[in-house]
Amino acid sequence: MSLLSNPRPVVVVVGVGAVGGFYGAKLVRAGEAEVHLLLRGDFDAVRRDGLRVRSVDGDFTLLPDQLRVHRDAGEVPKADLVLVTLKATGNAALDSLVRPLLKDDTALLTLQNGLGNEDELARLFGPERVVGGMAFACINRVAPGVIHHLDHGFLKIGEHVMPGQPAPGETPRVRRAADLFRNAGIRCDVLDDLRQGRWEKLLWNVAFNGFGAALDLTTDLLLATAAGRDLALRVMREVEAVAAAEGVSLPADIVPRQITHTASMGAYQSSMQIDRRQGRPLETEAILGEPLRRAEALGVECPVLRNLYDLVRAVDPGEPRNV
Amino acid sequence: MSLLSNPRPVVVVVGVGAVGGFYGAKLVRAGEAEVHLLLRGDFDAVRRDGLRVRSVDGDFTLLPDQLRVHRDAGEVPKADLVLVTLKATGNAALDSLVRPLLKDDTALLTLQNGLGNEDELARLFGPERVVGGMAFACINRVAPGVIHHLDHGFLKIGEHVMPGQPAPGETPRVRRAADLFRNAGIRCDVLDDLRQGRWEKLLWNVAFNGFGAALDLTTDLLLATAAGRDLALRVMREVEAVAAAEGVSLPADIVPRQITHTASMGAYQSSMQIDRRQGRPLETEAILGEPLRRAEALGVECPVLRNLYDLVRAVDPGEPRNV
Repeated sequence: MSLLSNPRPVVVVVGVGAVGGFYGAKLVRAGEAEVHLLLRGDFDAVRRDGLRVRSVDGDFTLLPDQLRVHRDAGEVPKADLVLVTLKATGNAALDSLVRPLLKDDTALLTLQNGLGNEDELARLFGPERVVGGMAFACINRVAPGVIHHLDHGFLKIGEHVMPGQPAPGETPRVRRAADLFRNAGIRCDVLDDLRQGRWEKLLWNVAFNGFGAALDLTTDLLLATAAGRDLALRVMREVEAVAAAEGVSLPADIVPRQITHTASMGAYQSSMQIDRRQGRPLETEAILGEPLRRAEALGVECPVLRNLYDLVRAVDPGEPRNV
Repeated sequence: MSLLSNPRPVVVVVGVGAVGGFYGAKLVRAGEAEVHLLLRGDFDAVRRDGLRVRSVDGDFTLLPDQLRVHRDAGEVPKADLVLVTLKATGNAALDSLVRPLLKDDTALLTLQNGLGNEDELARLFGPERVVGGMAFACINRVAPGVIHHLDHGFLKIGEHVMPGQPAPGETPRVRRAADLFRNAGIRCDVLDDLRQGRWEKLLWNVAFNGFGAALDLTTDLLLATAAGRDLALRVMREVEAVAAAEGVSLPADIVPRQITHTASMGAYQSSMQIDRRQGRPLETEAILGEPLRRAEALGVECPVLRNLYDLVRAVDPGEPRNV
């Protein structure tokens, strides 16, 4: 049995924060898959109180007896599909969390932020298992097991593209994973080239997670001044140039379109700004460090990104401190 | 009668915030000068309640009947010495506030932050009137008429140096002004070359007011991470290079000395960080814009300062906002 052959596939959600909690709860509610949740910090709360989703699309609650909740990966059945929704700062735990879930044909789908997560999964578990995706959504975990879905929510997923290889396009397992989400009420686009969606989302994350956290500004305040808007614009242009140097061409108007769209969103706190305020480690390396290293390897000048990486490290609660 | 000939000179303090309130109160208490306070926003509170100084050197209060408080410059006697302690963001009001106080030999001493304040006074009222100085002190105005003096407090003052002219060294009026402060219990050094003190203080202000406000970090937190300390160091090196290009050479170890000293100060909120938190306009142009313009005029590369100027404008409550 596999994701393709199993009429009720086993899906294991690894990491039940904002993204894992929201999409996991949607899949549970739809009932088409046997969904298991693998949690660490919030395990007790979710086992006791279940998952509560406050959503612009309608609130719902899943009671504990509607959930399959686990703290120990060893007690979870082998998965047809693993949904990796850990924060990228927790990737050191991937091996111990995911390896016990694997059988020969287990597929891994990461919805994590930033660059490098598919590569890490490929390195650990083999590239043939890896599917990647991005959540375009405003979701916060406001308390253990309590998810606040503020806006949007669609996914874009696609096969992992190995360095130097052509993009494999839409495969049957990606189509099947997309259908699982669609049947749970989630718009899910399949990308012929995953990297396009990856860089498209990264553009936004670099500017609004980066400056949002460094300057402690919501999206509307960052865009309200000429200086802030210009910083966002310049760093997005830099990231666009890195993508182009990697052979990924984004829509010509992607930067102004993202800025216009973000300006219409109102006062939005990016996840990185929230993490800074709550004293949690930031996804600095996945969102800023990794694109900067690729820029340097490719010889693309990125002075604003370079500086932003320093600024975010200066405010990152996860950075070592000498006082 | 003048600052030199008048045994009880008329000193008018223009702007009674943190710096004007603290040094003004000290001069009033010492009784050697006839001190007038010219205020706008805090006028009612100070006339009603007087000035309260909570100081590491000992608290004291000046009751309303111990003060000469004015809202209208036209009702103040002509000054022997005008102490300009407005925030630099209020310089547009200088002409209307200071001109009514002037007689032929009135001297002007600015203790304002940043670069360009002496030039502005010279332009408005004539260069021969202008003396400049810096307060090296941790002072906050915590409420109207309530001054909190946390640490340090010494002054460095000296004659304004006209562009292309040699520094005039210690003049009798500067010595007299310094003695007024000394007799009020304030250490006051006379600088042979004012520009040296100006740039020395600016080094600190650029790094700790600039990054403090942009990143909303106290001095200790900025210096706690390797990235933050490195940003402070790099921008100070840049400002040091601009000073050198202007012909002002600072002590060779000034940058590490200031960093070490600041690290010993504990969790200090710079005035710009406080202003940001309280939604007041920042002294962005005097502290960051002016040195950047000089760097550009002199052809000195200042990428970190350039970026910091943009960052601070993005958080400055005084910047125009389009939403």
